[in-house]
Amino acid sequence: MSEVRTKAALAKEAVRAIGSMDTASKNASLLAMADALVAEQDSIIAANESDLERGRAGGLTESLLDRLKLNPQRIEGIAEGLRQIASLPDPIGETLETAVRPNGLRIEKIRVPLGVIGIVYEARPNVTVDAAGLCLKTGNSVVLRGGSAALDSNRRIVEVLHQAMDATGMPRNALQLIESSDRSSVDEMLKLNGLLDVIIPRGGRSLIQNVVRNATVPVIETGEGVCHTYIDAEADPDMAAKIAINAKAQRPSVCNAMETLLVDAPFAERHLASLAALFREAGVELRGCPRSLALVPEMNAASEEDWSTEYNDYILSVRVVDGLDEALDHIRRYGTLHSECIVTENADRAERFLREVDAAAVYHNASTRFTDGFEFGYGAEIGISTQKLHARGPMGLNALTSSKFIVRGNGQIRG
Amino acid sequence: MSEVRTKAALAKEAVRAIGSMDTASKNASLLAMADALVAEQDSIIAANESDLERGRAGGLTESLLDRLKLNPQRIEGIAEGLRQIASLPDPIGETLETAVRPNGLRIEKIRVPLGVIGIVYEARPNVTVDAAGLCLKTGNSVVLRGGSAALDSNRRIVEVLHQAMDATGMPRNALQLIESSDRSSVDEMLKLNGLLDVIIPRGGRSLIQNVVRNATVPVIETGEGVCHTYIDAEADPDMAAKIAINAKAQRPSVCNAMETLLVDAPFAERHLASLAALFREAGVELRGCPRSLALVPEMNAASEEDWSTEYNDYILSVRVVDGLDEALDHIRRYGTLHSECIVTENADRAERFLREVDAAAVYHNASTRFTDGFEFGYGAEIGISTQKLHARGPMGLNALTSSKFIVRGNGQIRG
Repeated sequence: MSEVRTKAALAKEAVRAIGSMDTASKNASLLAMADALVAEQDSIIAANESDLERGRAGGLTESLLDRLKLNPQRIEGIAEGLRQIASLPDPIGETLETAVRPNGLRIEKIRVPLGVIGIVYEARPNVTVDAAGLCLKTGNSVVLRGGSAALDSNRRIVEVLHQAMDATGMPRNALQLIESSDRSSVDEMLKLNGLLDVIIPRGGRSLIQNVVRNATVPVIETGEGVCHTYIDAEADPDMAAKIAINAKAQRPSVCNAMETLLVDAPFAERHLASLAALFREAGVELRGCPRSLALVPEMNAASEEDWSTEYNDYILSVRVVDGLDEALDHIRRYGTLHSECIVTENADRAERFLREVDAAAVYHNASTRFTDGFEFGYGAEIGISTQKLHARGPMGLNALTSSKFIVRGNGQIRG
Repeated sequence: MSEVRTKAALAKEAVRAIGSMDTASKNASLLAMADALVAEQDSIIAANESDLERGRAGGLTESLLDRLKLNPQRIEGIAEGLRQIASLPDPIGETLETAVRPNGLRIEKIRVPLGVIGIVYEARPNVTVDAAGLCLKTGNSVVLRGGSAALDSNRRIVEVLHQAMDATGMPRNALQLIESSDRSSVDEMLKLNGLLDVIIPRGGRSLIQNVVRNATVPVIETGEGVCHTYIDAEADPDMAAKIAINAKAQRPSVCNAMETLLVDAPFAERHLASLAALFREAGVELRGCPRSLALVPEMNAASEEDWSTEYNDYILSVRVVDGLDEALDHIRRYGTLHSECIVTENADRAERFLREVDAAAVYHNASTRFTDGFEFGYGAEIGISTQKLHARGPMGLNALTSSKFIVRGNGQIRG
């Protein structure tokens, strides 16, 4: 049997044991895992150093190397993440519905773990710990398949976590790391119906699209965000500038950052030039539509491709539109159902935007950067769902659960 | 553009209009659709007669012809189903969560339509109406692809529904029927990411597995049920017999019917012979394990394949087990996560069974036949989900909805 199938089968076998652990025991294990990561940081950093060396030799970019790199501060941050997960309420066992039917059947719908969760992600060792913590907290087994550039780091991290699990009575088989760096190991995971209950891809567009296109196991699609901010004619100019700059430039690499600014023509005529200056000050390259260019000739010209590009960078496409309807049309055409914002003092148009835009999160007068499990108060986040099934928007612990019906009778039969 | 893509695109365009209809208008349309089906029954029955003739000529079995057949009583029943859907509460717009964050952001999570729902099903004209009613009630567009043997019936039914929609201001494009009888039209639907938000297959195993294996659009897997009843040593013999007979023989063709009876050895020694006699009286063929055969030699022998077969027929496999653990093992190995029952007067074992069995619905002292949206009080059912994502067990109107976050601010930006 292949590594993938063997480990997924072990993870499935462990579902009963991890799923029936009580909250206190799970939390104790998570805290022990956090402590172990800090205690074993030297060996983890050594393993990470070997990944980094291989990465440098293989020509990884500086930004990829930075995402891969671990140091004592980062390990402490990762451990702190586990401690926060331990401190969150445990959703498992929660009663979601109760009913007594006319025939006397007592029906309870309770929250249960999903079962075995597959996570496919890039060379980011922090995701290894974060995903493991979230899945184990919710009583799930987890099969991790991280980017091969982080394999030494991940292997050492999982060893350390396994030791902490052993020491605290959490079944180590509930945490599996796929070590094969062959792409076929991902392909195999995607088809493991019966062993995996869901796969959550975390990473860039091509990783996610590969999972969505090829998985037969149910998938929660996360992440891609071509997010818009629409500045209405009746926007407060200072607020609009503050929100737009924040949405683009506070952290351009993330999925809830703005990629396209839509500006109502009357606002553009009065304020686009000063707004463009602020963006340039923030180091943002602007790519404008012809009407934007007419107002701010210093911009580059946007191509059709720009409107559907998630730059994840200091680049912004800008389009002047004639009112809300044109803005809504643009968002419908190019949006990825992630996060969309209107800035306006006009309540009617705000409500229309909030109602009509089909996205995981729609904002009035606030930066799209808030679409985040922590900012929404969930205390943790496994990702941001951009699909409509199961979970939409920031996914906290509840998104890692399912439900079952418990029906108690005294001999009822169907007539 | 192909028929499938063209119609799915029209359905998607209609999402805004159908999704923003108020409850009273949607209900008025559903009632008009019900009346129209009854008023136009002659032309529907004529179209159905042409399907039936083609089916007879093509050698469809009697049971398939029966599922295909419409008559005035059946049409009245189908119309009554629409009226019931109209009478149910509308979940759209419901507030699911609210929060005011420390920074003043007001976050609301509200229930919204899924968008465009694809339904792939067999030659059952009643499903055409039922699925349309459920999807439209929840503000969704729906693309129907029914079995080609029912095409004339479906075409006439959808014409009648479209006329009623026109007359009552419901956008007709929200209801699309794929008329191509080519299998490739199903294959095309399964890959329509961006146009379809979900596909729900309704039908037998091969139809469902084709959808699950080939869809890149998210799927809700429904239906397959290898359901077990476990009779514990401490079961009340009369209750056990009543429940077991009901679970198997009240309607064997459905997914919540029992397929395998597990009998604790002490109970089997005392009661299996009389139970077997009751099953034979009910016309049920028994296929037993060697221990069952030793007690009731008249049974046929069960093969390994029997344990994972959904007969949907008057056939039951029977296995004698040594206690709860062996029963749980059997269910883990052969169950399809649908509906599982324990009959016992022993409260501890009942609770252990309810807790440990991983299935959409677990029963103590009641027939598995109750796993049904109507019996659970949902008033309607689009199917029974046997997956863990999004919906599990009987799916009522809520299962046809998603959510979105509405965030209201006054200039908040992320620090």
